[in-house]
Amino acid sequence: MKFDLERSIEVLSATPAAVRALLGDLSGDWTASTGDRDNWEPFDIIGHYIYAEEADWIPRAKVILAQADDRTFPPFDRYGQFARPNGESLADRLDEFARIRNENIEILRSWELVDEELELKGIHPQFGEVSLRELIATWVVHDLTHLRQISTVMAKRYDEAVGPWKEYLSILN
Amino acid sequence: MKFDLERSIEVLSATPAAVRALLGDLSGDWTASTGDRDNWEPFDIIGHYIYAEEADWIPRAKVILAQADDRTFPPFDRYGQFARPNGESLADRLDEFARIRNENIEILRSWELVDEELELKGIHPQFGEVSLRELIATWVVHDLTHLRQISTVMAKRYDEAVGPWKEYLSILN
Repeated sequence: MKFDLERSIEVLSATPAAVRALLGDLSGDWTASTGDRDNWEPFDIIGHYIYAEEADWIPRAKVILAQADDRTFPPFDRYGQFARPNGESLADRLDEFARIRNENIEILRSWELVDEELELKGIHPQFGEVSLRELIATWVVHDLTHLRQISTVMAKRYDEAVGPWKEYLSILN
Repeated sequence: MKFDLERSIEVLSATPAAVRALLGDLSGDWTASTGDRDNWEPFDIIGHYIYAEEADWIPRAKVILAQADDRTFPPFDRYGQFARPNGESLADRLDEFARIRNENIEILRSWELVDEELELKGIHPQFGEVSLRELIATWVVHDLTHLRQISTVMAKRYDEAVGPWKEYLSILN
């Protein structure tokens, strides 16, 4: 499938409601963070979505659109969610993700991007030149990557409970 | 995490709303079936959820609870969704999944299962003795497996669109 801005916005618009519907009424047994920075639980993953809305997608798009001399993206902290306010609940995070995602989609729409702008480039600190089109496509795939991660970490809680079915469930292997 | 019936019902209750929130407003470019029986798209996967509600979880639980001489589960057709009515839309499938899942959760609750019942066994045609507890745990993990599959098949549509990000996105590799 070729990149399409409207199709991309469809997915970006759906993700906050999808994670809310999945996680919003679950008990903490399914969702709570253990504080392990390298094994994220649903609570951590929603924090990561929020942090990426704050520090990744729109800020990087702005670097590209500005076309200044230095088009290198600011560094992104993939542990940024662990610096979020103490005492935040999962419900708080789901609300904040929905709010900031909606705000960012409005910014994206307000730019009324045309093909020439989607072809503009920025510099990724690791792998060099990337286009605005590729950045927005990655925003979409990043949403799906972490929805997949939420499904996987939840399923693993029942790794033993499924008994002999385990070998037939690829998500557990 | 140990198996818990109420915790299991939490996830079973959330899945229809989660897939509706994710898929309900997307265009067919993201969701439509290609008719390929071995590469399921979101439309096929929702059909598979429905078919499993009809033919797998509750019917197998009934075999276990009956404790008749023959406790072997009836065979399950993993291509059952391809025999569903022609002309069904994704919206129809999302509605039907929500309806039948709700009905099946009501049946499950009405049994008021106690530990002794959760330990009762049936015979899986491939791998033999399994308990009602393992069957219900597998129902939950099956939900998450196919949510993961939906995320994965959608992401793959942007396999090329993400450009050099591809090697950093495990969902594409």
